[in-house]
Amino acid sequence: MSQDIVVTAAMLAIGDELLSGRTKDKNIGHLADLLTLSGIDLKEVRIVADDEEAIVEALNALRGKYDYVFTSGGIGPTHDDITADAISKAFGVPCEYDEVAMTLLAEMYRRREMEFTEARQRMARMPRGAVHIANPVSTAPGFIIGNVHVMAGVPQVFQAMVDNVLPTLRTGTPVLSLAIACPYGEGEIGTPLTAIQKAHPETSIGSYPRYVGQKFSTEIVVRGRSQAVIDAAGAEVREMIDAIRQRKDIAENHSAEA
Amino acid sequence: MSQDIVVTAAMLAIGDELLSGRTKDKNIGHLADLLTLSGIDLKEVRIVADDEEAIVEALNALRGKYDYVFTSGGIGPTHDDITADAISKAFGVPCEYDEVAMTLLAEMYRRREMEFTEARQRMARMPRGAVHIANPVSTAPGFIIGNVHVMAGVPQVFQAMVDNVLPTLRTGTPVLSLAIACPYGEGEIGTPLTAIQKAHPETSIGSYPRYVGQKFSTEIVVRGRSQAVIDAAGAEVREMIDAIRQRKDIAENHSAEA
Repeated sequence: MSQDIVVTAAMLAIGDELLSGRTKDKNIGHLADLLTLSGIDLKEVRIVADDEEAIVEALNALRGKYDYVFTSGGIGPTHDDITADAISKAFGVPCEYDEVAMTLLAEMYRRREMEFTEARQRMARMPRGAVHIANPVSTAPGFIIGNVHVMAGVPQVFQAMVDNVLPTLRTGTPVLSLAIACPYGEGEIGTPLTAIQKAHPETSIGSYPRYVGQKFSTEIVVRGRSQAVIDAAGAEVREMIDAIRQRKDIAENHSAEA
Repeated sequence: MSQDIVVTAAMLAIGDELLSGRTKDKNIGHLADLLTLSGIDLKEVRIVADDEEAIVEALNALRGKYDYVFTSGGIGPTHDDITADAISKAFGVPCEYDEVAMTLLAEMYRRREMEFTEARQRMARMPRGAVHIANPVSTAPGFIIGNVHVMAGVPQVFQAMVDNVLPTLRTGTPVLSLAIACPYGEGEIGTPLTAIQKAHPETSIGSYPRYVGQKFSTEIVVRGRSQAVIDAAGAEVREMIDAIRQRKDIAENHSAEA
């Protein structure tokens, strides 16, 4: 419907460890859940290595195409943490030691009686003009530049930063969803479900097969931006399931009689 | 080293459910693990919606850039399964009912005394000229066209198809890795670790922070294509950890004496 507000987003997960299999990403699913609840449509995710050229290319592609970009990873203190440099390069601005971040970190390490090493100082580097994303877990801030939100890869820190970022975002009309358990496989429901989808173009109907005990069943999810459009399509999905059940009951009775 | 054979790959995971958070992807990590073991470098992953334009654009970008592309999702029987059409479009060939796939599926449904519905017949569609990837779980085949391997999204089926595909691939010199547990955080090891990385350019050294009990520790992973280069860098990493430990012991003794 024309009065719906659509806000789009992409995520860029950065790290060799995600591509080698060493680390199984947990941040994509977490962000997807929260954006969906906020009415922001996550349209694309990319995972790239700790490689400046790869990060710059992906970031520039995504930030031009979607309202928001969220990155994870590569903002720690070691040599493979090159996200701040890459983002600066993508925006064509210098990557600098941020004074406020330096002060925050210096104070935190003094409190903990730890040395504020050259490596730790790296975590204060960010593109000139960037705005902080507070890190209540381990102090070193993420940052925002343009429509890009740069966050840590460690899930506890990523999640804390996302919590700080979400309230600042422009959100759209949330996509509501209705999940209907269907005991029949996709092969059985495919044709009638296509007809329901065509009759309800304001909804997006997905069917998700499960394979348990050598048998497929399905979860049918009806998505839309108003409860009324979802309920209308959902009612037809339920009628479809009932109709399949009745047809099967009749077939079984027939074969019992035969 | 120049005699190393490098084979690159990308993965394209297809499905609205991955972007809405409904489904937490399990296929990326699984493929990453197996490619790493096979000596194939997974360089990039993209997740896109069940949207023809998005699939075509991502596929064409990836297939021109890497030796292999692996896709997951969207080859089932329902209206939101549009991967076969999108791949055909990307290659500029017609999407057709494959005769062998039709026969395989027809026989399977006959055996199970189930109707070979119009929806189920959709699973026999693939780009003209594609080669099958056998599906021992639920029959409907994946397919290969050019350097693109199209597989199911249901993890059991995806995994079975990957097992069938892997032995057919050209593989590179495997990347070996050595993981070293380090009780110190990245801020402590960052500077000396950078020096070790610089001294061992044939290795790729990653450090992966863990945050447990309000304290950071690190796993340091040294990767390389020969055991000798890994061992040399690994020995220096262990020396670095010992040196930090000794420095801390001395500092503690000093403060105990004071």
